[in-house]
Amino acid sequence: MVKDREQWAGFQGIHWRYEVNVRDFIQNNYTPYDGDESFLQGPTKATEVLWGKLQELQKEERAKGGVLDMETEVVSGITAYGAAYIDEDKRELEQVVGLQTDKPLKRAFMPYGGIKMAEQACRMYGYEPSEKLHEVFTKYHKTHNQGVFDIYTPEMKKARHAHILTGLPDTYGRGRIVGDYRRVALYGIDFLIESKKKDFAATERQGMRRYDFQLREEIADQIRALEEMKEMAKAYGFDISLPASNAKEAVQWLYFGYLAAIKTQNGAAMSVGRISTFLDIYIERDMQAGILTEKEAQELIDHLVMKFRMVKFARIESYNQLFSGDPVWATLVLGDFGNDGRHQVTKNDYRFLHTLENMGPAPEPNLTVLYSSRLPENFKNYAAAISVKTSSIQYENDEVMRPVWGDDYSICCCVSATEQGKELQFFGARANLAKCLLYAINGGVDEKLGEQVGPKYAPITSEYLDYDEVMEKYDAMLDWLAHLYVGTLNMIHYMHDKYYYEAAEMALIDSHVKRSFATGIAGFSHVVDSFCAIKYAKVKPIRNEKGIAVDFEIEGDFPRYGNDDDRADEIAIWVLRSFMGKLKHIHTYRDSTPSTSILTITSNVVYGKANGAMPDGRKAGEALSPGANPCYGAEKNGLLASLNSVAKIPYEYALDGISNTQAINPDALGHSDEERTENLVSVLDGYFDQGAHHLNVNVFGIEKLKDAMEHPEKPEYANFTIRVSGYAVKFIDLTKEQQQDVINRTCHAAM
Amino acid sequence: MVKDREQWAGFQGIHWRYEVNVRDFIQNNYTPYDGDESFLQGPTKATEVLWGKLQELQKEERAKGGVLDMETEVVSGITAYGAAYIDEDKRELEQVVGLQTDKPLKRAFMPYGGIKMAEQACRMYGYEPSEKLHEVFTKYHKTHNQGVFDIYTPEMKKARHAHILTGLPDTYGRGRIVGDYRRVALYGIDFLIESKKKDFAATERQGMRRYDFQLREEIADQIRALEEMKEMAKAYGFDISLPASNAKEAVQWLYFGYLAAIKTQNGAAMSVGRISTFLDIYIERDMQAGILTEKEAQELIDHLVMKFRMVKFARIESYNQLFSGDPVWATLVLGDFGNDGRHQVTKNDYRFLHTLENMGPAPEPNLTVLYSSRLPENFKNYAAAISVKTSSIQYENDEVMRPVWGDDYSICCCVSATEQGKELQFFGARANLAKCLLYAINGGVDEKLGEQVGPKYAPITSEYLDYDEVMEKYDAMLDWLAHLYVGTLNMIHYMHDKYYYEAAEMALIDSHVKRSFATGIAGFSHVVDSFCAIKYAKVKPIRNEKGIAVDFEIEGDFPRYGNDDDRADEIAIWVLRSFMGKLKHIHTYRDSTPSTSILTITSNVVYGKANGAMPDGRKAGEALSPGANPCYGAEKNGLLASLNSVAKIPYEYALDGISNTQAINPDALGHSDEERTENLVSVLDGYFDQGAHHLNVNVFGIEKLKDAMEHPEKPEYANFTIRVSGYAVKFIDLTKEQQQDVINRTCHAAM
Repeated sequence: MVKDREQWAGFQGIHWRYEVNVRDFIQNNYTPYDGDESFLQGPTKATEVLWGKLQELQKEERAKGGVLDMETEVVSGITAYGAAYIDEDKRELEQVVGLQTDKPLKRAFMPYGGIKMAEQACRMYGYEPSEKLHEVFTKYHKTHNQGVFDIYTPEMKKARHAHILTGLPDTYGRGRIVGDYRRVALYGIDFLIESKKKDFAATERQGMRRYDFQLREEIADQIRALEEMKEMAKAYGFDISLPASNAKEAVQWLYFGYLAAIKTQNGAAMSVGRISTFLDIYIERDMQAGILTEKEAQELIDHLVMKFRMVKFARIESYNQLFSGDPVWATLVLGDFGNDGRHQVTKNDYRFLHTLENMGPAPEPNLTVLYSSRLPENFKNYAAAISVKTSSIQYENDEVMRPVWGDDYSICCCVSATEQGKELQFFGARANLAKCLLYAINGGVDEKLGEQVGPKYAPITSEYLDYDEVMEKYDAMLDWLAHLYVGTLNMIHYMHDKYYYEAAEMALIDSHVKRSFATGIAGFSHVVDSFCAIKYAKVKPIRNEKGIAVDFEIEGDFPRYGNDDDRADEIAIWVLRSFMGKLKHIHTYRDSTPSTSILTITSNVVYGKANGAMPDGRKAGEALSPGANPCYGAEKNGLLASLNSVAKIPYEYALDGISNTQAINPDALGHSDEERTENLVSVLDGYFDQGAHHLNVNVFGIEKLKDAMEHPEKPEYANFTIRVSGYAVKFIDLTKEQQQDVINRTCHAAM
Repeated sequence: MVKDREQWAGFQGIHWRYEVNVRDFIQNNYTPYDGDESFLQGPTKATEVLWGKLQELQKEERAKGGVLDMETEVVSGITAYGAAYIDEDKRELEQVVGLQTDKPLKRAFMPYGGIKMAEQACRMYGYEPSEKLHEVFTKYHKTHNQGVFDIYTPEMKKARHAHILTGLPDTYGRGRIVGDYRRVALYGIDFLIESKKKDFAATERQGMRRYDFQLREEIADQIRALEEMKEMAKAYGFDISLPASNAKEAVQWLYFGYLAAIKTQNGAAMSVGRISTFLDIYIERDMQAGILTEKEAQELIDHLVMKFRMVKFARIESYNQLFSGDPVWATLVLGDFGNDGRHQVTKNDYRFLHTLENMGPAPEPNLTVLYSSRLPENFKNYAAAISVKTSSIQYENDEVMRPVWGDDYSICCCVSATEQGKELQFFGARANLAKCLLYAINGGVDEKLGEQVGPKYAPITSEYLDYDEVMEKYDAMLDWLAHLYVGTLNMIHYMHDKYYYEAAEMALIDSHVKRSFATGIAGFSHVVDSFCAIKYAKVKPIRNEKGIAVDFEIEGDFPRYGNDDDRADEIAIWVLRSFMGKLKHIHTYRDSTPSTSILTITSNVVYGKANGAMPDGRKAGEALSPGANPCYGAEKNGLLASLNSVAKIPYEYALDGISNTQAINPDALGHSDEERTENLVSVLDGYFDQGAHHLNVNVFGIEKLKDAMEHPEKPEYANFTIRVSGYAVKFIDLTKEQQQDVINRTCHAAM
């Protein structure tokens, strides 16, 4: 009775043959690897040629102001273009084919999220958008952005303008939806279509309502997207209707799935997800069959990674300010444990890390090690060594995530977990809690604009701030903010579904999908430290002629978050708990499950600009500290004390992630790379064993940053990659302002 | 404090000045008229010239196979065309200007309901649709029709294919939404925009959900439509931002509102609504001011009616079969009473009826007299005289409708009432109850297709049909049908809202709108008579080799509906009550209020073709009797007995209407037109005093029909208009099949 196909020869297990169940396939077939990195191979000639060509193109791109070429006449879509290659004349070198447009690094025209933004992006780089397409997307077809602005309330617009709600995905695709691209390889498109048709039939019932209609139409659109994927692959000479029959096909099929996603969506985050262990199974089978060498296997992975490094979208200025350095969050996870207790590290995890050596450091794909101190020592050491060498990796705690997300999750953006193929996330950017505290003090009047933005609650008028009074007023203002925030996001996601639905990605996700609703917090540590100051020191608001507190005088010392001091850290936990406590009682779109993150990406600079002075001593306009990081300069007790503070924040209060970015001076970490590696592993073990969620590891000194800022032309800085909050970026691609912010951050000179 | 405007000089009343409230304006300002028709004036020279031109064009249109010209390159929209006139060179003759496209009788290209249908309509008449627009509406913008077919269940498709659900608005606009076009004249566009903006603001609340988002986006789209109406009027040299200042402007402003509707929607029914009394107020004011003569007033109404006679849409073959003769249901109501007891008949009601004399009979606008025996005798007599002369009028009972719909309702399609400006109706075509009875007998197998369409309930296998068994099985099958029917309509209306929302019409309706959900019944009298036969005679099914009852032998006599026989008429009431009893428990889209109608329009012929033989003796394929009419040949006791039967059906069970169409031989009605008029008034008084809902009055003999069928070229038949179920039509525009059906109907030779 076992359903078999020739492409599955040698594979074990039962369930995955009858239903789409990639996890079951992996658990039955993968080979954990405990050895070291000595098996790894260097780049092939083909890799060097292609990567060389790409580096030229990247140089050209930078010389042209950040964009190499742009489409203006063709609306991006799965089948919008025929086949295209990195180098048309050397196409036989490419082990993995498929470009977003008709030329490498050429950016597609994607109007569904908003025709204004699509056109603005063109004009920003000197391209004139198509008149015909302007007509189509203004006269005949409304876009997501127009839909949202049609229904926003004046209050929402004000809150957005004042930057108490920030970075809302109303002018860009929401992203964070990770198709299970492995399905294309394991099953082939025809089986996936058949499964979707079954799902469609199974949604039938008497008394269907609009929720059901929406879902049925979505499945119909997904099936169309699957059909188009076949057509797209055909243009490259591949028939992906059936399963992949070897490792090369598996890599190619999987990439075609991802390619369909990035041809149809320009979401802020377009994660790749969990693919390493899956692909390793095919590689192992081919090696055992003697039809693949390690050199060839590495080449496949190098070429796949090269494709991830090439993903580009046309963005507008305000977007680049929020998300600096052209990131796409092609996040890809490595490491971790299965539910059965076996670790899931395979040789392929080494191969992916090894791409940072074969082709040098790079921000994409956003390589994420799902960490546990129980991981094989060899793997921990190799990852840490690559971190020391490239500062291109982030670490997340598998031990806190696995109980929540199972053992087949991926990271869908910077740090947020999602169960691969079972789940989607409604992305929600951030609410600025620092500003919320100022609104509580100023009765809803924005301290920068001088306008009433929040509700007209009574402001605080006392000479010194009273802790209890501020707490009470902050709670009331937070209540307003939480409801407004969720209400705004509900509108955004309703319109995104209506005008910019992710059919290609959702085609590779279960029809009966779990939905999470990811909100976020900005200004976290400033709220914490402000409450500390009010409680433990004396804080006197300096009010302007309108009575608005525009600065604060602090008399006396106070404990600060980031020093392993429970007095401050308990307030940190309270700040988070009070926000999440409100969220969970508010209806979220499509009955999704609300969560939150403490994560700002590089937007901390923009948010800071719009934020007045805080009671913790931070001056007006200064960058907020990123993510869950302690305030700049607050950390007085070294790296470990800082990590201990962040580790105290319970992951269950911020299931969308708690981002911590640290830079350590190489000298502080050790005297040799070996010592540094060893010490880094100790730091990671200690940090994550306490239940901390996330760490961006940077190993460099301030001097290098300063030099790179002053001499970006030096060849050694061309690919100098650093981890910022939630992603990696080439330092020289950051704006001067962002570079200065990175330099201002605490760089630990002592453990 | 009274808000006043110079255009409102002389008008009385308060409330309507502060909020959109046309009814209040009318009640405070209209002048009931009890006199006779002697004040009426003949056509002006301009009317004769323009109407002459139009008749030429109509002749040309008929010669060209039914369509004069078609657009293929421009998508119809409020501002899609500049100004256009009936005769470009004589534009000064037109007292009311505005065409649907750039030429008279040229049909617009309207793809939003369905690009396939729009293109099919073009090709049917030899026009090649635009490739560019094909791309837009297949690649970039989905249409209503595609949306619906994306989500239909196989069961729905089967039921549709088998014609147990018929004429569903999934391949044409749903129509039946009547904008309150009077608002444009009374308030001007700017005030309406201001009001809509207030409504938009008032929808704001914490915790809005998708229902709220949908409404807010709709209001935003309505505001855009209002802005476009101003632009459209400007092209004709009119500024409609302010109220109309005289009768001519009032007529023109109002027509611009209607014009926006027919430029954006091709709904099956595009009613004009209630405008006569409203416009009379302006005419009276101008006459009292000495700036308008009766001749000029009649000319205004004649020219407005001319415009209604010109409304055209591009239709496809299957649509024409359902709704034969190119009807648009530009329904316009006259007569009736106000809540304060005053009748609402004005001189203008005479003027509208008089257009049938000034320009001869015509099917459009679909003139509807809201009747009561208490109406002024002069008016009743004049309407009846016009009926006798033209057979172009229908009558509906104001005494049963007013308690339900108030005193400012209009008819939104054939016979269905709707409160003007306060309400919309989700139109639902029909369920074929005759076929449902056959499914009950055959266990859900379709008697024509031989396929399982309904649920596989046990069929009836006995030699003779047992009344109780049939009742029980019919009830179960009806339950299935009612749920399937409503479920199908819910999908249709969801998609219509999504892809083909009526922004221009809804812009002239209250934002907080009441919604009714109009289902309909076909095959009514055949179900009634079948149950009579089963109960009072012996009915033996003749089964084919598959065991399906394909014919019936009836032994003995039985009472039949249409003879004032309570035995049959009680079954008629039960049939309706049992259907409505199920409907009211089923969720309907947007929490609308379900209702039903007994109304088939000319679709009775198509439905009949798809319907097997019935236990009442009707043969397979024969036309069903239309609407609530008794079966052909069943009426044995004359006109009055037939009317008495229909009058027994309670209006409260079928608030969407109970349509009855009768033809009376002129000789049977009287020996002179005076006598005929007098007798017709008696018939109407008697019929409606019993609580009957509707009557189409035809006064002609079969001979005339036969002659017209054989000699359509005779000039006397060019405008020969007859009332069919729910509308009026030029007899020679019907298909041969439809003509034969009309001839087959009972033509009463005796009262």
